[in-house]
Amino acid sequence: MVSFNVFRGSSEGRIVTDRISRSLGPNEAYVETTHSGLCGTDEHFLKAGLVLGHEGVGIVREVGSNVSSVRVGDRVGFGYTHSVCGDCTKCLTGWDQYCPEKKEYGTNDHDNGSFSEGAIWDAKCLVPIPAGYDSVNAAPMMCAGATVWTILSEYGVRATDRVGVMGVGGLGHLAIKLAAAKGCHVVVFSSSEAKREEAMGFGAAEYHVFKAGEKIEGLQPVNHLILCGSGGVDYTGLLPLLDTMGSVYPLTVDLKPTSIPLLAYTVRGIRIQGSLVASRQTLRSLMQFVAKHNITPTVMTFSLDEGGIEEAMKTLREGKMRYRGVLVKQN
Amino acid sequence: MVSFNVFRGSSEGRIVTDRISRSLGPNEAYVETTHSGLCGTDEHFLKAGLVLGHEGVGIVREVGSNVSSVRVGDRVGFGYTHSVCGDCTKCLTGWDQYCPEKKEYGTNDHDNGSFSEGAIWDAKCLVPIPAGYDSVNAAPMMCAGATVWTILSEYGVRATDRVGVMGVGGLGHLAIKLAAAKGCHVVVFSSSEAKREEAMGFGAAEYHVFKAGEKIEGLQPVNHLILCGSGGVDYTGLLPLLDTMGSVYPLTVDLKPTSIPLLAYTVRGIRIQGSLVASRQTLRSLMQFVAKHNITPTVMTFSLDEGGIEEAMKTLREGKMRYRGVLVKQN
Repeated sequence: MVSFNVFRGSSEGRIVTDRISRSLGPNEAYVETTHSGLCGTDEHFLKAGLVLGHEGVGIVREVGSNVSSVRVGDRVGFGYTHSVCGDCTKCLTGWDQYCPEKKEYGTNDHDNGSFSEGAIWDAKCLVPIPAGYDSVNAAPMMCAGATVWTILSEYGVRATDRVGVMGVGGLGHLAIKLAAAKGCHVVVFSSSEAKREEAMGFGAAEYHVFKAGEKIEGLQPVNHLILCGSGGVDYTGLLPLLDTMGSVYPLTVDLKPTSIPLLAYTVRGIRIQGSLVASRQTLRSLMQFVAKHNITPTVMTFSLDEGGIEEAMKTLREGKMRYRGVLVKQN
Repeated sequence: MVSFNVFRGSSEGRIVTDRISRSLGPNEAYVETTHSGLCGTDEHFLKAGLVLGHEGVGIVREVGSNVSSVRVGDRVGFGYTHSVCGDCTKCLTGWDQYCPEKKEYGTNDHDNGSFSEGAIWDAKCLVPIPAGYDSVNAAPMMCAGATVWTILSEYGVRATDRVGVMGVGGLGHLAIKLAAAKGCHVVVFSSSEAKREEAMGFGAAEYHVFKAGEKIEGLQPVNHLILCGSGGVDYTGLLPLLDTMGSVYPLTVDLKPTSIPLLAYTVRGIRIQGSLVASRQTLRSLMQFVAKHNITPTVMTFSLDEGGIEEAMKTLREGKMRYRGVLVKQN
């Protein structure tokens, strides 16, 4: 039996501490949480009463009787995916993020999250963190990094491609860094000049202020366009940015249906590719890649407790996060 | 100098005969048209005044001084693509249907079409018709066959996949035959029971009457869904038909924007893949495949003259074509 404090959202929108006690299953591991990234999805689930957080890093403190993939003392990442079946078509083909048995953040596991002092995970969903790569940097890779990395690694993005990133925030700034690191020509579209210098510093080759309906003089269209901003994208306005046979990856969370001039997209051979977070293998490949090339998120840190979480969420809500918040356990 | 009669649409919607005389360029061939398929696109361009038809088969009668790819007397297919540059990124990667220099039916060549007694073509856009494969069957392959074949051959459709075909018409009936011939499990969705027997005869494994919003009991979702019907597709209604990581290929021509519940598509990893007709290589591979496996369209024939074209277009307009009209030169 292990016991640990967790931080839940609540119907009033406040962070509340709760305590969980339960015994470890044979395939599970108890991980002490040391770091957690903060994602817009946490804000989305703030009032749902679940333990928030899905960008965790921590230390394995106890393992179930069948567990051999991690050992006590290992430093591991975790978060979005709590368990997968390992045996369905999706798992067998390396796309376990679509496993129909998957337990995942926000949908079917309300007691485990990285806004916590610890959590119990299916051991096979834990991601080894390479030695020498800081936990504070590893945490945002578990969702933000993983989400853009799946697009950059699984859908045919080539080093010679022009990769558009629309929106420079938690996702977008990592998309720029990762795409640049794999050799792509990164073209940033932002609603203002405010982030130009930083974006170029992250590895962008071009930075354009873009408003739907306005023409960008002399723009060479992109092969891939990752939509990292908030919702309300004008799909007619995107067309001049996209090369024929280009791809759009909507990472925007828009609850309303979107109006799309589908004929204009289809006659130009453009695909709109849905993509969800990452598989366990994609997460592992990401951690190897960022450790090897020393690619790190740009973070602001907060304390991993009620006050720190609320301060971080306020910063995010006000659009002041540069560019990912990480909650750090205070010793 | 060659001269030949052509059949144009007109602002009144009637077919009118016109005569064209011009000399052959060094890279061109003059082809006597013997057969032409009829496509919904011809109806769309009926009042635009251009020479209609883009599913042609005929005999090479004269070649320009540089032409070595075809000879006088060869039987060839032609139609949608009139010329490509051969040297751009798209041409060099085998996707010449997206060549920015492409001349194509309906957009930038108003004097050449397969509703004609002959036409002058860029010789490199002519497709050899395998010996023994009837011209009447080859004609519909140039657009209808090519369009579905591109989807079935270029976007990762596997023999083990469940391939959905929505709408059994000129495109849909060929999609069923071709997908079945490459080993796929073909699932037909139609608005009524009317075509069940024929569709199963074409090679479908399942036939479902489908109306958006109605549940199909026990349906196993499909990996690929080719939309072959007319416009007005309800993309929310499609969701239960689609497996996670599935693909939708809209071949519907819908001039109005489409409302798409994009979040539901993206969280399930679904792509909406635009696809346009076929490259020259895809057309050649299609002709080899249909000749080898003796796959033929189901056709109704009409005479290749003003009266025959108008009769064929009326049949199509009234929804009575089973399943592709072919105009045949009368001797």
